[in-house]
Amino acid sequence: MRDFSSDHRWLSINTATVRRQRGVDWPLLEIIDACAARGIRAVSPWRDQVAAAGLQATMQSLRAHGIELSGYCRGGMFTYADAAGRQAARDDNRRALDEACLLGAPCLVLVVGGLPGALEGRAAHRDLASARAQVTDGIAALLDDARERHMPLAIEPLHPMYAADRACINTLRQALDVCDLLDPPGSGALGVAVDVYHVWWDPELAQQIERAGRNRLLALHVCDWLTPTTDLLNDRGMMGDGVIELRKIRAWVEAQGYAGYSEVEIFSANNWWQRDGGEVLDTCIERHRRCV
Amino acid sequence: MRDFSSDHRWLSINTATVRRQRGVDWPLLEIIDACAARGIRAVSPWRDQVAAAGLQATMQSLRAHGIELSGYCRGGMFTYADAAGRQAARDDNRRALDEACLLGAPCLVLVVGGLPGALEGRAAHRDLASARAQVTDGIAALLDDARERHMPLAIEPLHPMYAADRACINTLRQALDVCDLLDPPGSGALGVAVDVYHVWWDPELAQQIERAGRNRLLALHVCDWLTPTTDLLNDRGMMGDGVIELRKIRAWVEAQGYAGYSEVEIFSANNWWQRDGGEVLDTCIERHRRCV
Repeated sequence: MRDFSSDHRWLSINTATVRRQRGVDWPLLEIIDACAARGIRAVSPWRDQVAAAGLQATMQSLRAHGIELSGYCRGGMFTYADAAGRQAARDDNRRALDEACLLGAPCLVLVVGGLPGALEGRAAHRDLASARAQVTDGIAALLDDARERHMPLAIEPLHPMYAADRACINTLRQALDVCDLLDPPGSGALGVAVDVYHVWWDPELAQQIERAGRNRLLALHVCDWLTPTTDLLNDRGMMGDGVIELRKIRAWVEAQGYAGYSEVEIFSANNWWQRDGGEVLDTCIERHRRCV
Repeated sequence: MRDFSSDHRWLSINTATVRRQRGVDWPLLEIIDACAARGIRAVSPWRDQVAAAGLQATMQSLRAHGIELSGYCRGGMFTYADAAGRQAARDDNRRALDEACLLGAPCLVLVVGGLPGALEGRAAHRDLASARAQVTDGIAALLDDARERHMPLAIEPLHPMYAADRACINTLRQALDVCDLLDPPGSGALGVAVDVYHVWWDPELAQQIERAGRNRLLALHVCDWLTPTTDLLNDRGMMGDGVIELRKIRAWVEAQGYAGYSEVEIFSANNWWQRDGGEVLDTCIERHRRCV
């Protein structure tokens, strides 16, 4: 297991962690500058942040600073209520793939979608099994495009509390079942993103990480689970402030040969998003050394 | 599958559903009267409500109205930080068993506990596996007491969002693994309470309900999952207002031979707890016929 205590060379910042501080958007190019100034070697930006900054400008900034991507957030949202929705999702996911390629991402992270319309509070139906079937079909189709572009797809199982509205793939077992179905040999074209926030509770976690193995472990996201948690979406904790056994989970992932970045992704409306972005980045570095 | 559409003979009311309306506790004996007046044949009371009403008075009221229990809420909280905590939990669970016996409950529902101290925001440690081991040990010990009293224990897996602070048994698979370990023949002394709110998302739900079989399916709780859900604990929906496939899940449970009550348990700080209790009960009856 790698020693993270004396430097932060394996720290990546998911840029949602500092996307909007004290009510003001922090522009992506400034976030990248601030990461570079702290010796942070990787980021994982969100598509809307890249769009606001400009794809070319983002590429140039990353290159100028020598900053890598640990992933690109995000593709997915494969569930749809009609054929037009299906086509729109397909087209949008192809654009996400192209952007991921241009930015040199190691993988496109997939948040697969829940019941169509549920995120807007108007679920088109309640048939979770059919939504899951749409997700499998959607990943299958996108996998063709992804293979052409040599861009791995990382299915991110989301916590079961998001099953209705954000992602109906909710456990590593389920994500790996899809991998087994669509890429039986484990070519590396399809794998998983392990976000501790979503999977820490799973009694099968160690076993499923082992099942994933090196070829399917494409990303590791860290933050913490607070007690109490006051919001389903935007009350994630800084590493060390909650109850997740971060080091134990990282050990399981690294035991499979994972040697990539550990990406901090914190949505925190009332705490970390209310602080100066530089302070948040400094805290990420300190906690990454001490708690991850 | 039973037809619930023309009467509500299989409706039970978990009394937390109407425990405190518009900021005022609704006394248990009045809740029982209100249920009886509506032809509701069963309730599942909470221990604190019974304690406030008096155990004898509760028994007499239930008998006078001919109202049964569909379960008794609740035992459990098996995790502890020290030996004194362990003994206190053991003693309290024995009292819960005795109360369940006096009230003629068909089972004592177990919410097993999370990391010790986490519910108070001060987790004693992060070792989820050790908490789970304590739970198994605690159930094993209580099972001896329960067998003596002929009172079945129903492990209620809670949604993974409660893994830290309320229950570290989070899936039916996990609960049934404990049943297999402690009561291999499936004697009926140990089983599960299936609350749709906690398990609806589980891709293995149908399979695990089948695995449970008739002897281990001790209770069925219904409510609904709202989109959005605004609070982790107290924003459950009335049946029909959310995305849970209630009829499908009930069909799976009944296909195993379950023929008991369907118990409505809704914690709803900002909606149903803000209404007149009688209105809530009337709505439960109507929705139970139409949506369950």
